[in-house]
Amino acid sequence: MKAYKEMSRDELLTLKAALEEAYKQEEAKGLSLNMARGKPGMSQLTLSMPMLDVINSQSDMNTLLGNDTRNYGDLDGIGECRKLMADMMSVEKDNVVVCGNSSLNIMYDTVSRSVTHGVNGSTPWCKLDKVKFLCPVPGYDRHFKITEYFGIEMVNIPLYDDGPDMDLVEKYVNTDPAVKGIWCVPKYSNPTGISYSDEVVRRFANLKPAAEDFRIYWDNAYCIHHLYDDKQDEILNILQECEKAGNPNMVYIFASTSKISFPGSGISAIATSLENIEYIKSQMTIQTIGHDKINQLRHTRFFKNIDGLKAHMKKHADLLRPKFEAVLNTLDRELSGLEIGSWIEPRGGYFISFDALPGCAKSIVAKCKALGVVLTGAGATFPYGKDPQDSNIRIAPSFPTPEEMQQAAEIFVLCVKLASVEKLLGEM
Amino acid sequence: MKAYKEMSRDELLTLKAALEEAYKQEEAKGLSLNMARGKPGMSQLTLSMPMLDVINSQSDMNTLLGNDTRNYGDLDGIGECRKLMADMMSVEKDNVVVCGNSSLNIMYDTVSRSVTHGVNGSTPWCKLDKVKFLCPVPGYDRHFKITEYFGIEMVNIPLYDDGPDMDLVEKYVNTDPAVKGIWCVPKYSNPTGISYSDEVVRRFANLKPAAEDFRIYWDNAYCIHHLYDDKQDEILNILQECEKAGNPNMVYIFASTSKISFPGSGISAIATSLENIEYIKSQMTIQTIGHDKINQLRHTRFFKNIDGLKAHMKKHADLLRPKFEAVLNTLDRELSGLEIGSWIEPRGGYFISFDALPGCAKSIVAKCKALGVVLTGAGATFPYGKDPQDSNIRIAPSFPTPEEMQQAAEIFVLCVKLASVEKLLGEM
Repeated sequence: MKAYKEMSRDELLTLKAALEEAYKQEEAKGLSLNMARGKPGMSQLTLSMPMLDVINSQSDMNTLLGNDTRNYGDLDGIGECRKLMADMMSVEKDNVVVCGNSSLNIMYDTVSRSVTHGVNGSTPWCKLDKVKFLCPVPGYDRHFKITEYFGIEMVNIPLYDDGPDMDLVEKYVNTDPAVKGIWCVPKYSNPTGISYSDEVVRRFANLKPAAEDFRIYWDNAYCIHHLYDDKQDEILNILQECEKAGNPNMVYIFASTSKISFPGSGISAIATSLENIEYIKSQMTIQTIGHDKINQLRHTRFFKNIDGLKAHMKKHADLLRPKFEAVLNTLDRELSGLEIGSWIEPRGGYFISFDALPGCAKSIVAKCKALGVVLTGAGATFPYGKDPQDSNIRIAPSFPTPEEMQQAAEIFVLCVKLASVEKLLGEM
Repeated sequence: MKAYKEMSRDELLTLKAALEEAYKQEEAKGLSLNMARGKPGMSQLTLSMPMLDVINSQSDMNTLLGNDTRNYGDLDGIGECRKLMADMMSVEKDNVVVCGNSSLNIMYDTVSRSVTHGVNGSTPWCKLDKVKFLCPVPGYDRHFKITEYFGIEMVNIPLYDDGPDMDLVEKYVNTDPAVKGIWCVPKYSNPTGISYSDEVVRRFANLKPAAEDFRIYWDNAYCIHHLYDDKQDEILNILQECEKAGNPNMVYIFASTSKISFPGSGISAIATSLENIEYIKSQMTIQTIGHDKINQLRHTRFFKNIDGLKAHMKKHADLLRPKFEAVLNTLDRELSGLEIGSWIEPRGGYFISFDALPGCAKSIVAKCKALGVVLTGAGATFPYGKDPQDSNIRIAPSFPTPEEMQQAAEIFVLCVKLASVEKLLGEM
């Protein structure tokens, strides 16, 4: 294939005419496909339906310790569920509080509590003139929305194949006391799919924050969300590394079963040092009498243990892999050598991240939408919704069927080509 | 019966010796009964067990509108559940957002949001020098804990048989712009069991707050929690009354099924004006992708409609009534005429409130505890845990069996008598 940038104006015009013709044909099909969000597909939801039989009117509703899950109690979650989530998050049970249905909600509450009450006794952030968070980009839009909502200034940090630019992270964290946090998706990152290298994790653990209330917000959303049996990423245990480095309180780890059981009806957890846990519980006990323990029991009895969780995730992988491959094969077949975009082949998680020619992302997303294929809005993967390059697009292959995904991928590459030609012709 | 205060010192000493003897006998029994919290009893939990069969692996998981409850979506709750909660709260469906498992959590979030972001655009409370809440007393300890946690100054307002002292409420709300809220349990009040009269509700609706961001926090926790078929309290619709009075945004109404289905595994809701709903949703969408919609579906399919809810509550009443009567009959039989305490006979709710001789509540609670009967801590029904009279005790009859409740009531009156005699003898 000839790279577009090496084509003459005439060649580009000829190509453009052909692409526009193809575009018209697709337009006539009137498709309606949604690749905007990391929503599990129908077949994935079906996997967890047997969970709904595990607890019924004849069930023993007591925990292993004999507590009745139907009544008030167990603020930090029932013991067996804390154990299950601890194993999933690679920490000890005592380091875990099991919460409600959403890890996003825990993250929000964690930031909100810091704004109103500070962190383990520090000055409440609402009393400070400026609070900053570092945001590896591209990243997860809902993280950025939380910090934006609380008026926290966000600083873009480039995300490479092995993690964030740690020179820059160290520079900010170790010298600027206004920097109070960094958002991380360390494994199968949203959206690029990369995992942090051991060196990156160690450099995180060895930060020397200028602010005593600096914390790493370690959203391990895809901790057991592999796509392959034989190619799996593993990351270093950040809680252990922080302990070793003498920074035991520096990290909050978040996870949930939203993409294991049911989005919205799963369970979530936070894992951190015992000192942090005590502080969090002192606030949680004001906020709630406790979370949904029957749902905790349902999850624990269904998955039984970490092996049960892993076996379940293999079934998810079998369903997701063809969808990822439909996109990746199409990108590879249609775009290789054209030099109009790049992407990483993820080994897990929920996304494929595509970097178009600078200035093309919005145009591609708009063109796809006109053909009935909804993508995450261009810019969403950056703080304030502003991609300085207008280049990154997040593709979420999970919700459509593999066949629909194939169709959507064909449309996507068509729109990439057309937008790129327009760009090179100076029409945009 | 002779009133204690009319007894001579010798009579009191003789009485005291007899009471101490009885106390010793009870001490030997080594009881262990808990009347501290409004926890449903085992028999009540059993009532809702069939709910756990309603959703199973064979169920159609779609809402009436065809939305899949197993996936992300429906931020404000599934339609049929909003309708059910609306009917329970006597408002329209559009005025309701169904949330997670805890109305306390909604109240906390509502206050927290006001602290960080203000109310519908007002100055965030964290930017103000002083924020005050009015607290009808005795009241619900967990309300007071929320306001205390956020550093909000609490002002005690006497609670009478028909509601709070409205002269005082009007004086504060209409003149002091620092007064931003008032905690109300308008029906079968926690802990006194009284319900607000129509006049009180109208006076609430017609407040002319000095602060634009003043709101009434209307915790209608016991809206359908009657104890009798033939003696039921009804209160005026505060949302309608506020609309009529030209104060449509002035009230937030909270409710949950914690004491209808399962505490911790129920559903909760907030009802308020459409303008308030929009503001709340603009924050909720940052905090969560949505609440547990499978549990919303489970509740809606089990209860079906408001008639189903009411029929279910009759079964609760049948189980609770004997426990309340065990206490009330014992109080009546043992304490009438002694002039060492007063109480109100509630027609619903979860509590019996007892007012001892001033200065006796802590002593009574401690004596009961020594005999194995745990009551809510004396003072808990007041802001900062400080009952200026040391008089009020909250009795929660729901958790023990009727037989246990009878035993506990006997111990309670014994301790009331002994503490009162000690007080009158000047020993405390």
